[in-house]
Amino acid sequence: MALFGSGGPRAVTVGAGLLADVLEAPLVRVDWRPPLERLEPDPAVDAANQVAVGRVLAVRPQLVAVASALDTIPGMRPDLLLHSGPPLTWEAASGPMRGALDGALRLEGRDSADLEPCHQHDAVGPMAGVISPGMPVLVVEDAETGRRAYCNLNEGLGRVLRYGANDEAVLDRLRWMARVLGRDLARALHEGGPIDLGSINSRAVQMGDELHNRHRAATSLLFRELALRGLGAESLRFIDGNDYFYLNFAMAVAKLACEAAADVAGSSLVITMARNGTEFGIRVAGAPERWFTAPAAVPVGVFLGAYTQADANPDIGDSAITETYGLGGFAMAAAPAITRVVGGDARTALEATLEMYEITLAENPNHQVPALDFRGTPTGIDVRRVVETGIQPVINTGIAHREAGVGQVGAGMVRAPLEPFRAAHRFLST
Amino acid sequence: MALFGSGGPRAVTVGAGLLADVLEAPLVRVDWRPPLERLEPDPAVDAANQVAVGRVLAVRPQLVAVASALDTIPGMRPDLLLHSGPPLTWEAASGPMRGALDGALRLEGRDSADLEPCHQHDAVGPMAGVISPGMPVLVVEDAETGRRAYCNLNEGLGRVLRYGANDEAVLDRLRWMARVLGRDLARALHEGGPIDLGSINSRAVQMGDELHNRHRAATSLLFRELALRGLGAESLRFIDGNDYFYLNFAMAVAKLACEAAADVAGSSLVITMARNGTEFGIRVAGAPERWFTAPAAVPVGVFLGAYTQADANPDIGDSAITETYGLGGFAMAAAPAITRVVGGDARTALEATLEMYEITLAENPNHQVPALDFRGTPTGIDVRRVVETGIQPVINTGIAHREAGVGQVGAGMVRAPLEPFRAAHRFLST
Repeated sequence: MALFGSGGPRAVTVGAGLLADVLEAPLVRVDWRPPLERLEPDPAVDAANQVAVGRVLAVRPQLVAVASALDTIPGMRPDLLLHSGPPLTWEAASGPMRGALDGALRLEGRDSADLEPCHQHDAVGPMAGVISPGMPVLVVEDAETGRRAYCNLNEGLGRVLRYGANDEAVLDRLRWMARVLGRDLARALHEGGPIDLGSINSRAVQMGDELHNRHRAATSLLFRELALRGLGAESLRFIDGNDYFYLNFAMAVAKLACEAAADVAGSSLVITMARNGTEFGIRVAGAPERWFTAPAAVPVGVFLGAYTQADANPDIGDSAITETYGLGGFAMAAAPAITRVVGGDARTALEATLEMYEITLAENPNHQVPALDFRGTPTGIDVRRVVETGIQPVINTGIAHREAGVGQVGAGMVRAPLEPFRAAHRFLST
Repeated sequence: MALFGSGGPRAVTVGAGLLADVLEAPLVRVDWRPPLERLEPDPAVDAANQVAVGRVLAVRPQLVAVASALDTIPGMRPDLLLHSGPPLTWEAASGPMRGALDGALRLEGRDSADLEPCHQHDAVGPMAGVISPGMPVLVVEDAETGRRAYCNLNEGLGRVLRYGANDEAVLDRLRWMARVLGRDLARALHEGGPIDLGSINSRAVQMGDELHNRHRAATSLLFRELALRGLGAESLRFIDGNDYFYLNFAMAVAKLACEAAADVAGSSLVITMARNGTEFGIRVAGAPERWFTAPAAVPVGVFLGAYTQADANPDIGDSAITETYGLGGFAMAAAPAITRVVGGDARTALEATLEMYEITLAENPNHQVPALDFRGTPTGIDVRRVVETGIQPVINTGIAHREAGVGQVGAGMVRAPLEPFRAAHRFLST
């Protein structure tokens, strides 16, 4: 928190104009571009995709509990740390990932632990996405099926574990979050009942949040629900000081929704886009046990203070699950104010959303964009459409310093690499 | 509340398409139209207007207290009722105004009272705008000058006094507001300190509120401030159930800001637009003691339930002070979701704001529209520009039933009549 004060990341206007120029070209919508690959129509895949995306849209997410990762996440164990993105070894981990893993080991009082992706445990975590056994996690449940997804709690901005910072102040905050915030939330939910996160998502998108890097409305609506349930004053002040607090809720909702399509045979729907700071990877509905990966790109960003593009780590975090669910970069037409954080202008924000309709299967009726006369956000990326059009999914993202222990240096935009989509298409076609 | 349930007015989609057609024509921006009157340039007026609008923009509104009208509003007395719009007699009052006045008399236990406009007592009130001596009012103070403005508290939607309903349930709610809500608010402010309403306005406009008929963001941000000050649970629930709660705060802020320009000699800046259900009137900076009036028009609306245009009362309420301050109809580009309430579509909302730049003196840096790349809303109507261009200020508004005792029947759009602007121009020119 020390880096940026309590008001969230300040907009750095120096360089934002140039950044807009950089961002403009790739985001401009084109009516036609030469297909990279001409795919034969495949009615069986189309039918599978309709089933898959229908399942995604049918999910009704409720926050039902907050409890420790060890007590809730399937397959969690005392000697395991979860991390963002596709599978990773200690040796391949980038600076911020190592910083977060080191901090989590100290938090748990351990010398070593096994590593597995959050995504393989029905969980997600932003940036390094490290979830250790003792951390409190959100439990989000589908009211239709009872299926669940999990995410850790948001620490705030600046020097925080998820950006690779791990000094004692960072660990002290995490201890307070387990001891006070997590227990307050658990009690408020136990006594006051579940919170309808689908309703908060829906209203927030109509209040200028895209729910990846802008959460002021959703955090406010969540605050209302928690205050009415009598959440403790200290916890309310913590949430009030962090307009990113809802990010982790939005991620758990998106994970719950996307995972609903896992195992729909033959479907080319993307159910995960995630980055571990070294590699970018996707999972698809028709083969959910596999990761298709490529090296992670470096986001183009708006930098805080004296930091520059040279300080930026390659793309990191499970938070691209929001784009996978039609939010974040896909919903920027609903949130032109996000350009103060990630660069670009109102036109590029609008065009990002319009372009993403070309690679998606549905328009989400729960996420309506008032500026597009309540058209739903483009939801459900189809591997085939990405391969055919060459349009790379757009992701807006925080940027971590490339060295362990520093923290956040900015925010910006990045495009998903095409290779994993091509590899997934080849796999599904054989 | 009984009419519409607790979720606010529902969007009535039947007829909304037709309504959009009706609204579209007058809202379409034209690059040139023949001037109705060719005015000679007047550098003295221009200079006075720059002083006047500079004063409006310099106001820093803080909510400092809540107390009874009798204890706070200058010139309030036990035998006086304040009402919206220009001066009015009992005989000339419309149905909803009579309903509200009758209800206020019963609330105060009186048989009769004198009538004076809120605006002549540094106060404002939405719709009928009736403020009786015992009602709690918001006290909003300019941190720069200590000057104050006042507004009553918002009752919610449907069957409420300000729309002319006055049954026992309406009066019981008003009694609870004085006994519980008003005192809770007073205590929270006394113990927790003032609330910066300029900051809430600023953030809310970037969250899709236009602060006349859409207040979901501002109410949420206000809720956060009040919950952190320990407001009582019953009062928090009341506010949580009414996303219009901030309307009265926005009105007091706008009144405080606009009145800052009163008495700037020679200025043609409009400092009040207000309607009493019978007449529409304006006040201008160069002659603040005078009203320039014309018959009130009937808003074109989206109606609730079985109500139709034929049920609509002529335009009523001080809430057009928000348009006078560059909000409401003037800020609809920031709030395309408002079209679900008042009709039109995203394009007409955008065009309403763009058109209003042609009759205003400044762009408010505190009210930035993300969709216009953070351009400030058009603020400070110039009587001369209205007369020259013939562009009528656009107002979005709730619609009351024309008979006493019924309540709200819809919401919609209306244009200010030109005559008062012409009369003010003639007066200032002689």
